[in-house]
Amino acid sequence: MSNQKNDFSKWYIDTIQKADLMDYTPVRGCIAFKPDGYEIWEHIQDEMNKRFKETGHRNAYFPMLIPESFFEKEKDHIEGFSPELPWVTEAAGEKLEERLALRPTSETMIGHLYSDWIKSYRDLPVLINQWANVFRWEKKTLPFIRTSEFLWQEGHTAHVDEDEARAETMQMLNIYKEVVEELLAIPVYDGQKTPSERFAGAVDTYSIEAMMKDGKAVQAGTSHYLGTKFAEAFDIKYLTKENRHEFVHTTSWGTSTRLIGSVIMVHGDEQGLVLPPRVAPTQVVLIPVGPWKKNPAIMERLDAIFKELKAKDIRVRLDDSDQSPGYKFNEWELKGVPVRVELGPRDLENEQALMKARDADEKVAVDLSNLVESIEQELQTMQTRLLEKARAFREEHSHTHIDTLDELKKHIADSVDNSEIPGWILAGWCGDDECEEHVKEETKFTTRNIPFNPPAEKSTCINCGKDSKHTVWFARAY
Amino acid sequence: MSNQKNDFSKWYIDTIQKADLMDYTPVRGCIAFKPDGYEIWEHIQDEMNKRFKETGHRNAYFPMLIPESFFEKEKDHIEGFSPELPWVTEAAGEKLEERLALRPTSETMIGHLYSDWIKSYRDLPVLINQWANVFRWEKKTLPFIRTSEFLWQEGHTAHVDEDEARAETMQMLNIYKEVVEELLAIPVYDGQKTPSERFAGAVDTYSIEAMMKDGKAVQAGTSHYLGTKFAEAFDIKYLTKENRHEFVHTTSWGTSTRLIGSVIMVHGDEQGLVLPPRVAPTQVVLIPVGPWKKNPAIMERLDAIFKELKAKDIRVRLDDSDQSPGYKFNEWELKGVPVRVELGPRDLENEQALMKARDADEKVAVDLSNLVESIEQELQTMQTRLLEKARAFREEHSHTHIDTLDELKKHIADSVDNSEIPGWILAGWCGDDECEEHVKEETKFTTRNIPFNPPAEKSTCINCGKDSKHTVWFARAY
Repeated sequence: MSNQKNDFSKWYIDTIQKADLMDYTPVRGCIAFKPDGYEIWEHIQDEMNKRFKETGHRNAYFPMLIPESFFEKEKDHIEGFSPELPWVTEAAGEKLEERLALRPTSETMIGHLYSDWIKSYRDLPVLINQWANVFRWEKKTLPFIRTSEFLWQEGHTAHVDEDEARAETMQMLNIYKEVVEELLAIPVYDGQKTPSERFAGAVDTYSIEAMMKDGKAVQAGTSHYLGTKFAEAFDIKYLTKENRHEFVHTTSWGTSTRLIGSVIMVHGDEQGLVLPPRVAPTQVVLIPVGPWKKNPAIMERLDAIFKELKAKDIRVRLDDSDQSPGYKFNEWELKGVPVRVELGPRDLENEQALMKARDADEKVAVDLSNLVESIEQELQTMQTRLLEKARAFREEHSHTHIDTLDELKKHIADSVDNSEIPGWILAGWCGDDECEEHVKEETKFTTRNIPFNPPAEKSTCINCGKDSKHTVWFARAY
Repeated sequence: MSNQKNDFSKWYIDTIQKADLMDYTPVRGCIAFKPDGYEIWEHIQDEMNKRFKETGHRNAYFPMLIPESFFEKEKDHIEGFSPELPWVTEAAGEKLEERLALRPTSETMIGHLYSDWIKSYRDLPVLINQWANVFRWEKKTLPFIRTSEFLWQEGHTAHVDEDEARAETMQMLNIYKEVVEELLAIPVYDGQKTPSERFAGAVDTYSIEAMMKDGKAVQAGTSHYLGTKFAEAFDIKYLTKENRHEFVHTTSWGTSTRLIGSVIMVHGDEQGLVLPPRVAPTQVVLIPVGPWKKNPAIMERLDAIFKELKAKDIRVRLDDSDQSPGYKFNEWELKGVPVRVELGPRDLENEQALMKARDADEKVAVDLSNLVESIEQELQTMQTRLLEKARAFREEHSHTHIDTLDELKKHIADSVDNSEIPGWILAGWCGDDECEEHVKEETKFTTRNIPFNPPAEKSTCINCGKDSKHTVWFARAY
């Protein structure tokens, strides 16, 4: 196992492969999601679906292929996406009359259909979500985080007016924040993107941003208020109660399989994955130790515990393979299983088992009489503890006292000298694109978002020193 | 509403659009699955996933784009699929070195990866399923039943030997039969496909076949024993316990969104959809009738019933819109909602409501005191009743006394004369491809499958009159 601290990228790549989450494929930038990787996504899907449905959304499915002419209808949109599109040009032995793009996102196809589906205020709001594969043919790829094909959900809603559409935009951002924090134990800052980082075609883009263990940021979810831009491009009008024709106001919002990568980069350690119990494919592993094969009472007891945990819908595995206990401990630690239970002849005599949380240093002895309760308890505690640890890590690497570009450069240089991660900095910004661009050129720090609840308010622009309009998170980002 | 009996195709197309299940799109043969259509698929997915997981399968996700060279490795496979493939030839502004096909199925990509994942008998069996979009650029399309892009699940398993792989093939066919009969209330015949109807690259293909209301057949699911064909093409070998290298035996099996089309064509009637309760997006609709607006007690009572049904996880809607009751009745019948409940002032006085099952002729009065129980009961009864009705319909239109091609031709001519559907015929077949082909040319009746449990055994080939090797279902098919 490579060293997480010294070479984070290598650690990440090694870990996700050894832990059997993914594999590379011969198609550039496209990975295979193996069952342990895909199941993390399934748990995310379940939780998102629950919350989407509770807030009145329904799932649908739209064509993956999008005619070239559709993209051209919204000029920011085509400018933003055209450099990354793969194209179908032939099918069934014939050249197509019009090229078809593999969707990078579905605003255009959905805009085209909504213009037909929406006629009157009675048809509004339209609250639809889609789970789908999307394509962005990017130069630099990284498994889960940035792949040519990835899986995501994209919500597309239409509303009578700006207020309602903006409320929807915020509601969905908030659901993302809750799911990412509660399910993935990843603390995030919610806030607004600067204009240069906006979604191509949006009026306003909001994001949740998470800090990885190398201090870099991952944009973990975005929610866009699209105004009437796509409504105008695709002529989505409705008849108001007062019998006027008005453009609808639309939103879109998305989260993707990069969340799988994030959960690994936030919680993993030198031994491998550390998975929050709520998304771990295996939550508990039971391992017989000592001369257990000569002692059938061990497996009998473990079988009983296994069944009891199963009955409580806990995802449990019993590892009775021929490998040594030490091998098994390493294997299941690598896979990030939250709780390990060991039972050997001496433990059984004492009517106890040893329990170890994946992120704890020590095993603890637990009476067999309340082992199942202790496991349940530990799964809950660990879920909270991982969030707290990640929050503490983030606070430690969030810097709020850097006010100028020179200070930032010195901070970065010092970090390199001390083998520390530079982390994030909270700084003032005058609102000028050029100041933002200059910071990026000089430091590779980009604006992450303008947080709704910044830990401090900064008064001067980090680049030009003028009065700041916004307090912004700057960081290197995936 | 067009007439189901006189023009089944038009009835189908009209109904699925009016009932808001789908919409056409500007991309040839690609439809949009609207929420009410997609939700039927979600219920199918839930049930399939439950059964796949119970039998030890896990989900994964593989790249959608498949290099051209992969297809060429298995000659039957490329022959079968190449006429229908769409190709990506450019991406991000550059021409690709090798064309990439939009997957029609994933045996080749998965074969390539399994050759890497499988090393030893300890790695077997591999039991993986994928939910994905697939593409077959076919000339003639029909919403849900045959579309250029469709959604499906494809299972891909690898085993130590033929016995185990064949047992898997049968297990999955059986799961399909159970889900289609129990969830969709569609009776099917399970059996083996003839060689000419086999999956491209399979040793043996098995299917479940369902009869639509126009007498045509839909292949509702297939399960393939692939032998070592793909293992040889992609070099998937494992080390046996005895230290020998052997090819694995693989299977694949799939069901698709054509099941949505099937459920409509099996149960729908002149008034529109008739949805089996277990897959209906809305299972119960509550409708206030009479002068209910002047009588707030009506809505209070309906609200209470609504909440009680919700608490029991019944998918219920309360229609308090301004439309007339008659309009609402038609609307919800069109959408196939299984149970309708009406409550008006006079009903309330009598402490009763009127309940109507979608497929019943009459409303029944039910005491409000046990309305919820009656609804639950009716949902269960209707689920069973729809299956029985579909079975009775199928028996009525299954013909077992046609022994020669001339008799079949006469049967078809008589059907046309009497405005009846020709249905299916059970006939003997000598096993010769040419006999099968001749029947098809003369009658458009194709072999559906060789049923495991035919209602009779037929002794002579329908075409050549020689001894039959198999008793086969012949029918026109979608």
